[in-house]
Amino acid sequence: MPLGEAPRRVTAEPVHAPRELPGFARSTVDGYAVRAADTYGVSEGLPGYLTVTGAVLMGTEPTAEVKPGTAVTMPTGGALPRGADAVVMIEYTAEAMPGTIEVVRPVAPGEGVVRADEDARAGQQIIPNGRTLRPQDLGMLAAAGVTRVRVRARPVVTIFSTGDEVVPPETEMLRPGQVRDATSVALAALVAEAGGVPVHAGIVPDDPATLETKLREALVASDVIVISAGSSVGTRDETASVVARLGPPGIWCHGLAIKPGKPTLLAECARGSGGHIGSGGHSVSGEPGIPVIGLPGNPRSALVVFRLLGMDLIRLVGGCTAPPPEPSVRARLDRDLASATGRLDVVQVTVSGGAATPVFGLSALLSVLTVADGYIVIPEEATGFDAGTEVDVTLYR
Amino acid sequence: MPLGEAPRRVTAEPVHAPRELPGFARSTVDGYAVRAADTYGVSEGLPGYLTVTGAVLMGTEPTAEVKPGTAVTMPTGGALPRGADAVVMIEYTAEAMPGTIEVVRPVAPGEGVVRADEDARAGQQIIPNGRTLRPQDLGMLAAAGVTRVRVRARPVVTIFSTGDEVVPPETEMLRPGQVRDATSVALAALVAEAGGVPVHAGIVPDDPATLETKLREALVASDVIVISAGSSVGTRDETASVVARLGPPGIWCHGLAIKPGKPTLLAECARGSGGHIGSGGHSVSGEPGIPVIGLPGNPRSALVVFRLLGMDLIRLVGGCTAPPPEPSVRARLDRDLASATGRLDVVQVTVSGGAATPVFGLSALLSVLTVADGYIVIPEEATGFDAGTEVDVTLYR
Repeated sequence: MPLGEAPRRVTAEPVHAPRELPGFARSTVDGYAVRAADTYGVSEGLPGYLTVTGAVLMGTEPTAEVKPGTAVTMPTGGALPRGADAVVMIEYTAEAMPGTIEVVRPVAPGEGVVRADEDARAGQQIIPNGRTLRPQDLGMLAAAGVTRVRVRARPVVTIFSTGDEVVPPETEMLRPGQVRDATSVALAALVAEAGGVPVHAGIVPDDPATLETKLREALVASDVIVISAGSSVGTRDETASVVARLGPPGIWCHGLAIKPGKPTLLAECARGSGGHIGSGGHSVSGEPGIPVIGLPGNPRSALVVFRLLGMDLIRLVGGCTAPPPEPSVRARLDRDLASATGRLDVVQVTVSGGAATPVFGLSALLSVLTVADGYIVIPEEATGFDAGTEVDVTLYR
Repeated sequence: MPLGEAPRRVTAEPVHAPRELPGFARSTVDGYAVRAADTYGVSEGLPGYLTVTGAVLMGTEPTAEVKPGTAVTMPTGGALPRGADAVVMIEYTAEAMPGTIEVVRPVAPGEGVVRADEDARAGQQIIPNGRTLRPQDLGMLAAAGVTRVRVRARPVVTIFSTGDEVVPPETEMLRPGQVRDATSVALAALVAEAGGVPVHAGIVPDDPATLETKLREALVASDVIVISAGSSVGTRDETASVVARLGPPGIWCHGLAIKPGKPTLLAECARGSGGHIGSGGHSVSGEPGIPVIGLPGNPRSALVVFRLLGMDLIRLVGGCTAPPPEPSVRARLDRDLASATGRLDVVQVTVSGGAATPVFGLSALLSVLTVADGYIVIPEEATGFDAGTEVDVTLYR
């Protein structure tokens, strides 16, 4: 992939510098290339005098050579001429007479110079495998002349919404009992943020046979499957039964000690045969299965769980071993927060002036998420936080 | 713009809910719709008995009505039938005989129910103007049936590299004195991250007339111009002279008390006539000029300054008034760091086990940036930080 398309892609192999970098000794200052020995002992009171025998031009190979008692004019970034081992800054020189400078400060060998291999030695690893490419990584690759980079394929994440009550967002007037599919578009954005390619598989009615057919189709061409699994116990159980039939390996767990997000289903299903690019077309013994995440039907619960578990799963499938850091801020909780032990609570908060204010509301309410600046996590072992507790707020970007 | 294309775009107007949300009273639990008054005083020892007269189906308008002494079976998310004002959870009921349930816990009116306008009232603002759209914001818009959203145009940011020594990254073998253009591709990635559209204007040799012609062309079609302005004093001064000729308003400042990044140039130039989409084609008196940022020639210095100043500038031009939070971590500095007062120092660090270790190296070295996990800022007034100081590390994503 060309570098210009590679920001935030994950490398599929380490990258090594084909040659040393910058490749030649370069001046880091404007001044004069000298032999350091010629400046030893000079001072304001007792300057040294050097004959200027030439000038280095940017981007060209120096033709002048620095012999004892001489100096060559240097621009920042210019190539050090033969014979020189340091560059004295122009600030510490003065023109004594045309063609001669006085030097008022000594330089040590190597001063004012970047060594030919100081940015990278030839063959040195400059970018590790599994790196999510940051802007500076692309710069380093360009500097080394590596203009194409092998990256991992972005995982294809197929998103299903289920539920007889769910209708497309385009539906202008709802009948009582209907809700628009809010989860799919939000999940797609989270999938993309985690480096995946979201594929909308649409809305599936509460019919196990239809869901099974659709899921089997999706298992052929997906790397991860995400299902908003309906809100009521009946539809959740039906989804779990269908997913169980798709195994092996099958269901990892159904129900998590998280609030909101308890009805979450985590499973792994055998890749369907029929030719996904990444798999070579056939399910191979020992090949990892396709992770299937069944999310709660409430959009808010679904988004909370997907942010906690789904995004890192997609990153992992995409070869990213170190998830990028998330923005966070320390703040003081401005009221008591209760929590049951043995359950991880995710509480949305607004943050202002160092204070974190919980946004309360039923888990069915999306507005809690849009009003919030971020969230805090109350761990399983805690029974809550008292007002005044310093908490880490993970901020929504 | 359709919601699916809108993640991280900036809204150009506030969005209001066309109708109340969810639009009907919904059950938040599986159970029975009841009249709360029918459950007052019930307990495990003295259950209440209700006749089940029907069931609500997901996604359909309830046909049953709850009259005194009756109940209707409810799925989570179902629409509350007429006559009911609460839903009792299935866990607090039992089937006493076919068609009759016993209820062992009282419910208050509104319990187990989301009100018809609890997520949003009709006409309520659900997304503010200038919001960088987050996944949950898109979900809220979809829930409200708002499937297209007015967003600001992404600022067009034209990127120039200057310098006779600079050659395209594709150049396989460098002649001594030449360097590959590492800055452009990295800047482009930072521009995109800030919501801009990067346009590569290529490498301009150190020739003021050529640079002026190219910049005048760019002023017609850009919203921001970024120049890697060469490393040596001569080329930097030439760039400044050319930019000064492009005014008014002209140069804001040339030279910043930042290390690295001192030679930075900030200017504002009149938009060229000739028809940029955003401006209506002609420079209008009072219309803001085009920000021009002249960056240091060293790729590392350029990227440090652009991250500090350029990205927020692009966000501002793009209408984003609140920059998204950046990831950071508190860490303990593991050695002394000196800094001159009156100068802001940016020092790259690695972070491991709560300790921040400075990555030292000349400002010409890109490898310092690729090795680092983030950076700390030593403010103008400080003379440095002692080892052991707790510092905020801004983390590279």
